Parts: sequence; C-alpha cells; structure tokens
Amino acid sequence: MSKQQVAYKTYLSENEIPKAWYNIRADMKTDHCPILHPGTLKPVTVEDLAPVFCDELVKQELNDKDRFIEIPEPIRDFYKMYRPSPLVRAYCLEEALQTPAKIYYKYEGGNTSGSHKLNSAIAQAYYAKEQGLTGVTTETGAGQWGTAMAMACGYFGLDLKVFMVKISAMQKPYRKTVMETFGASVTPSPSDTTNIGRKLLENDPESGGSLGCAISEAVEAAVTTEGYKYVLGSVLNQVLLHQSIIGQEAKAAFEKLGEYPDIVIGCAGGGSNLGGLMSPFMADKLAGKKAPYFIAVEPASCPSMTRGKFAYDFCDTGMVTPLAKMYTLGATYIPSSNHAGGLRYHGMAPILSQLYHDGYINEARAIMQSDVFEAATTFARHEGNLPAPESAHAIRVAIDEALKCKETGEEKTILFGLSGTGYFDLGAYMLYNEGKMTDHIPTDEELQRGFDAIPKVAV
Amino acid sequence: MSKQQVAYKTYLSENEIPKAWYNIRADMKTDHCPILHPGTLKPVTVEDLAPVFCDELVKQELNDKDRFIEIPEPIRDFYKMYRPSPLVRAYCLEEALQTPAKIYYKYEGGNTSGSHKLNSAIAQAYYAKEQGLTGVTTETGAGQWGTAMAMACGYFGLDLKVFMVKISAMQKPYRKTVMETFGASVTPSPSDTTNIGRKLLENDPESGGSLGCAISEAVEAAVTTEGYKYVLGSVLNQVLLHQSIIGQEAKAAFEKLGEYPDIVIGCAGGGSNLGGLMSPFMADKLAGKKAPYFIAVEPASCPSMTRGKFAYDFCDTGMVTPLAKMYTLGATYIPSSNHAGGLRYHGMAPILSQLYHDGYINEARAIMQSDVFEAATTFARHEGNLPAPESAHAIRVAIDEALKCKETGEEKTILFGLSGTGYFDLGAYMLYNEGKMTDHIPTDEELQRGFDAIPKVAV
Repeated sequence: MSKQQVAYKTYLSENEIPKAWYNIRADMKTDHCPILHPGTLKPVTVEDLAPVFCDELVKQELNDKDRFIEIPEPIRDFYKMYRPSPLVRAYCLEEALQTPAKIYYKYEGGNTSGSHKLNSAIAQAYYAKEQGLTGVTTETGAGQWGTAMAMACGYFGLDLKVFMVKISAMQKPYRKTVMETFGASVTPSPSDTTNIGRKLLENDPESGGSLGCAISEAVEAAVTTEGYKYVLGSVLNQVLLHQSIIGQEAKAAFEKLGEYPDIVIGCAGGGSNLGGLMSPFMADKLAGKKAPYFIAVEPASCPSMTRGKFAYDFCDTGMVTPLAKMYTLGATYIPSSNHAGGLRYHGMAPILSQLYHDGYINEARAIMQSDVFEAATTFARHEGNLPAPESAHAIRVAIDEALKCKETGEEKTILFGLSGTGYFDLGAYMLYNEGKMTDHIPTDEELQRGFDAIPKVAV
Repeated sequence: MSKQQVAYKTYLSENEIPKAWYNIRADMKTDHCPILHPGTLKPVTVEDLAPVFCDELVKQELNDKDRFIEIPEPIRDFYKMYRPSPLVRAYCLEEALQTPAKIYYKYEGGNTSGSHKLNSAIAQAYYAKEQGLTGVTTETGAGQWGTAMAMACGYFGLDLKVFMVKISAMQKPYRKTVMETFGASVTPSPSDTTNIGRKLLENDPESGGSLGCAISEAVEAAVTTEGYKYVLGSVLNQVLLHQSIIGQEAKAAFEKLGEYPDIVIGCAGGGSNLGGLMSPFMADKLAGKKAPYFIAVEPASCPSMTRGKFAYDFCDTGMVTPLAKMYTLGATYIPSSNHAGGLRYHGMAPILSQLYHDGYINEARAIMQSDVFEAATTFARHEGNLPAPESAHAIRVAIDEALKCKETGEEKTILFGLSGTGYFDLGAYMLYNEGKMTDHIPTDEELQRGFDAIPKVAV
C-alpha cells in the first residue's frame, strides 16, 4: 500500500453538498429534440404533462434555460443523512491489477435503498408534498426505484402506490417487504385495480407482467385518483437533473485532491446514473475546456447505443407515453433474461442520446454478462464491496482501461460510477458462481423486429 | 430541522483511525475469572489454546496487562476502505419524537458484510496469514460472521471453510452465495466431513444442525487440517479488543463535537458490539471520571443478563469448549424462534459479565420482539436506514430513554450502537408487517431446565 498518497475515501463536508442541481440542457450545443405528444405528434406542453406529473417537475422537465436549479432546503436535509457520498480511491484494486492507473469510484450504494435512485426519489416526493398531493404512484421492476420512492414518501408522510411487475414481486418478496416497511402499498402488476390491468388479465390470467404494463397501470392510477400524480426514476430530464449531484460532488472532491479524471465511465440503462455522474464534467467539454473521455457501458443483450437507431420512439413497451428522440431498440424489444435489471431498457435518456449522437460522449461499449460478473467478483474481493451487476458493467470497463495503462505505462486517472450495491442481486451471483450464467447477443434479425416497431415519425 | 447545530454525520479522517485497540482488561478493577480447561478445570494456558487459535490471537486472549495493542498497518489499510464509520446525529428521529434529548448512533452497517463483525474478522485473518497458515475454519448461523470472515480471507488470499448451520444454509441460500463470491467454501452442518458431523448424521440423518454442532465441526476441521486454525466472532476477549475501535472512534468524534454521552446503549448477544462500543467510555468510569450510564439490551426470549446465573459454563451447546464464568442460561438452553439471530446466545462475554456483576454496566433490559420491530420501523422511516433486528433492540431503548426526556424536559445525550443493516433480515420484517411476529418469554421452569445443565464447578 506504499502507493497511498491521498485518502482512500474523500468526503466533502455536509455544507459542501451542492445547493443547486446542474441542468446540462442549458449548455448543450444542440438540445435534444422535443418530446412529442403521442396523439398529436406535436411537442408536449406544460398542459399536456400537468395531469400526470407534479407542476414543479413539469417545469424542470421542460427547462432548457437555467443552468442551475436550487435544491430546496428539506431535500438537502434528507441528502445530509446519506450524502455526500464518498469518492473512493481503489488502491487495493490498483495493486491487484498492478496498474499505474489511478482508479476512483463514486459510491452511491451506501444508503438503505442501495442505489443512486434515492437522489431523485426524495426530490420528486418533496415536490409532490409541496403541491399538497396525497400520494404518488410509480412502477418498479427489480425494486430499486420502488424502494427509493418508498423511503422518500415514508420520510415526507406521502402515500405511495407501487405497481411491481408480478413476476418480480413473486421472485423478490423481500423487496416488497422493504417497501411496505417504509409504508408503501405494493400491487403486483397486472392487477384488477386498473382498467388496463383488468384487460390484460382477461386476455392472460397467468401473466407475469412487464415494466410496460406496470407503467401503464401506475399512470392510470395517478390520473384517476384524486390528489395523486405519477413519478418515474430514469430517462426523464428531471431525473438526470437531480442525479447531477453525483457528478458535482465527484468533481468537487477531485478539486480537493488536485486531480481531474482522464476517463469517466458509467453504466447506462435509462441513463440516470451515467447522466448524473458525467454532466458536470461534460460541462467542461461543452465549454471547450479540458475534459475526460466519456464511456457509456451497456449489456450486450440490450445494446441500445451500440446497435440501436437514433429515432423517435415510445418510452414504454405499452406505447402509451409520449415519444422521445433517442437511441432505441424499439419499444417492443424484449432483452433476453439478463440479471442487470436496471439496464434492460429499450431506449436511452434523450439528453444522453443527443450527446452521444453529437460525439460528446466518446464511446459506448457493450459487455457480456459473464465478463461483468468476473469483474464484479474481482472488485468485491479486493475492495471489500459487492457491486450491483449494473454498476459492474462500469467496473469491467474501468478494469479494462486500467489494464491498457499497464501495457502502455500511462498513469491515467479513471473515474467510474458505483451506482449500487449487489445485496439484492445475489441470485445472479449464485448463477455466476455455479457456472450457470447465460447471455445472449441479439441477432440482426432479432433487432430488426424491434426496429420495425419504431413508429415512422417525420421530424 | 432548525435544531441542527452540528453535522448529521461526523466522520474522523482516515489518519484518525485508532492506531491501537483498547484492552479494557488492563483497567478492570476485578478481572474476569480465568477460562477453565474442560478436562482439568484448571485455567487455560497458551499451550492449551495454541492448537486451536493463531499464536498472536492466543496472546491477545490472555493479555490482561497491556492497555493498548497496536493495530498492524495492513489491518489499518483494510479499515480505511470502510472506516472511520460515521457518528450520526438522528435529527429526524428527534424531531419525530419531539424530544429534547440528543440522539446519536455509531453506524457499523455500511460495509458489504453489513455489520461490525468485519472489524474483528480482518484482524483474525491477518494474524492467520502472518503465521503462514493456509486457511481458517469457522461456523456461522445467520451468516453475518461468515460473510465478514469471507471478505477478510478473500482480501488476504486465505482459504476459509465455513460450517453453516444446515437449516440456515437452506433458508438463506444468498448468504452462502456472498461467502462463495468472496472465495469461501461453505459446508452445511452437520456434514460428513468431520467425525462429529458423521456421528450426528448417523443419529439423525435429517438434522437441521445447530450453532453448537457447527462450532464442534469447525474446531475439529481446524485441528485435523494441516495449516489451519479456528476463528470465532464474539464472546472472546480478543474479539472485544478488536471491536474497541467502534467506541474509540465514537469517543473521538464526540470530542470533536465537544460532547459526551449521558447514556450508552448497545444490544448484547455474545457481547462483541456492546463491548466494543462501550469500552473506551467504561475506561472513564474505571478511572473514576465522569462516565455515561450503560444499558445492555437483550431479547426477552434469551435473557442471559436479566434472568441468567453468573456461573462457570461451557461456551457452546455441545459442551466441548473451555468453561467461562459468565451470565448464562445454561449451554443447553435453546431460545425460542426469535429473528434476532445474533442475540440468541445462552451466555455473555466474560468481560461484560464481570462488569455487569460488579455494577459497572448499570442496567440490562430485556425487550419483546414486537416492540423491537416497532422501533425499527419508526427509525427506518425517519432516518432512512433499515436496521438489523439485533441493533433495533438498542434503538428501542434509545427511543424509550428519549421519550423519558420528553417527559422530564432533560436534554440528555444518548448514544447507541447501530451494529448492522436489516437487508438480510427481511423475512423477519415481513412477519412483523403481516402481524405474524411471535415472541416467547421463557417460564421459570424452562429457565430452570437450562440452569440444571450448568456444571457444578467449585471456584
């Protein structure tokens, strides 16, 4: 450990928690194309979104002007219970790899929800409470987002109805338990509590559900219940805005250390984690300053950036939401059973899609599942931290880049986002340990079927 | 939140991590009675313990002279990956209780093993590695200790054989997965890999095992395998020594804040968490200085301190270990099914037993399970942190003491140990949420059966 010069963990003080979120849209050279109303195919307005989302969040969603949006005091108070999160220097991993590279990770898994999702959940719950709402609805697949929302609503005394994909609710009963412990009500979806749920059950009483169906039920429940709105944990501009706190803290910590990353790596499903980690560094690039090389990492089984189309598409499988211009595999694309549930999304946040399209995100890399778990296990043993499979996509690439430095002798500074803990993914680790981990690279024909479902929208 | 004067979380810097563990035995007015060899009933010697434990750990076990024992650099390096742990001011809980009391907790659940057990695991693994051993054996029930040892051994590249109570291995397959991910081999106990296991299986092929049996198998495997020794996660002096880092950090953080606790509360199973949290504050009391009021909390279903005998007894159910003078319910006492697995131990660390007997620990309190989970849920919702059921025993008493302050108007400073996360105990939370939580206060007759099994040792 003779290499140690700076601390293993760099914490900011609580009064250094950012007082405003950074809105990257204000700095983008080309803003993302407007979100379109699914009926009129015209850009959505405040009035279109108001029945579904909280007023303040609608404003944030459509705000492309203000570089910074103040974080209300009650949200900062909640942040103080688990933030600032540490920027960790992975000395032990560096030692194991024998690399001259410096590897840093920003760790967002140290709160009870187990991931970065809490950063946006508490903000969305706050605005709902401020608006005088009784409660909110949302959907959850693996349970990460539902847990974060349950904690946030429990804290503000707001009701929460979670529609949980039925098969997940059956496979992960404890996730349901956590949400209920924080006071949420959890309904396996499809359910007989909504029109769309009843219709689906009529067609298929044994349906295990899907995220697309759960979204549809949650939206229906929100718009038909007095005093309720709907909240969502990724893809949206507002979510990337709230998650900017990750990158802002990371950047401030690097400043304290007198360092700056050469490479920034994040896993990308809907884009909330990568978007949040990256945006304050991307600000440098947009301003023409020295900036890192940005790498988005996705699973080979769900390669929206590396093999998808940049096109207008629905945000949900059910095709009821507005359309966004993004990298997409088609709303009907169903990724093969892959255990990084948080990365199984057919599209990508419009902000990230635009930045990738315009070359600001330098590279997207698709990774095989078994390579991901090999990296996860290496990381766990050396760093004493069991990562979420989603986050381990970023670890894989960080290790690969560090090994390149070993060959070239370069002392690059690598930053990756450790977005969550692997506590809730031990079923996937078990498969890996038992040699039963499978993966599937979609064929061109399989992808084509998804592309065929992308609506033809003249832009 | 207008009450906020100090930060929510107080972290020491990494170079403030203690450089030595505090050995409370050096300061005790009356040392605990010597541990007795089960064959000769004479005090155990270095020679008696050497076949089972690592040499350096035997020395620590028998050391009643040195107030401080230096923490080797490689252990401190590992500590730096997850320590110092935060001292947290529970502002939100105080607000919810409307108490003038200040509530602080020392949080040890923020590492991947999920509990304070890692503090001793890494020390024991280090000394085993230093001695040139190939590996170590241990047992685990709920899996907390086994996970911590797996992480520690994974880090130092040491083999680990864990004997896991068979029924637990079946009920908690993911705990097995975590240990295997860190490279440990996990054998459900009773197994056919040891004489005692084979004998037990002969008598009862369907046996679900017990901690007593798993201890016996782990000890047999250690003494019969070249290059192996045995390690244990609680009760022993060496474990309380390593855990003193909890209290030392807490005390140093209080000094930074210019505060000092009026009450220190810890849950007590084998005593490792309470012993570690308490000892540096107890040092003040032993030196005749101002000191806190100490409360040990145990489950009503396993009331060793509140209803047990202070007597020589075996440390294991199988009655093969040395005898310790301690508060005990009898080695044959089986607590009713109670979900705080870490507190289901018939005895209590000899150090704590002596301090309680001599009045230095002011009070022991036995708590009902449903009251514990009510406190756990309240804490989780307000503090955004889901506690382990063991730790929630301390939370229950902290809340009760804070509510007393509300009545009297006293501004007491309360410190409790939040020894672990509840992530791995969601089955118990589920029972509580569903109103199915049960508890059992043993009758005097039930306790008497345990007392009858306590050996008659003339001291």
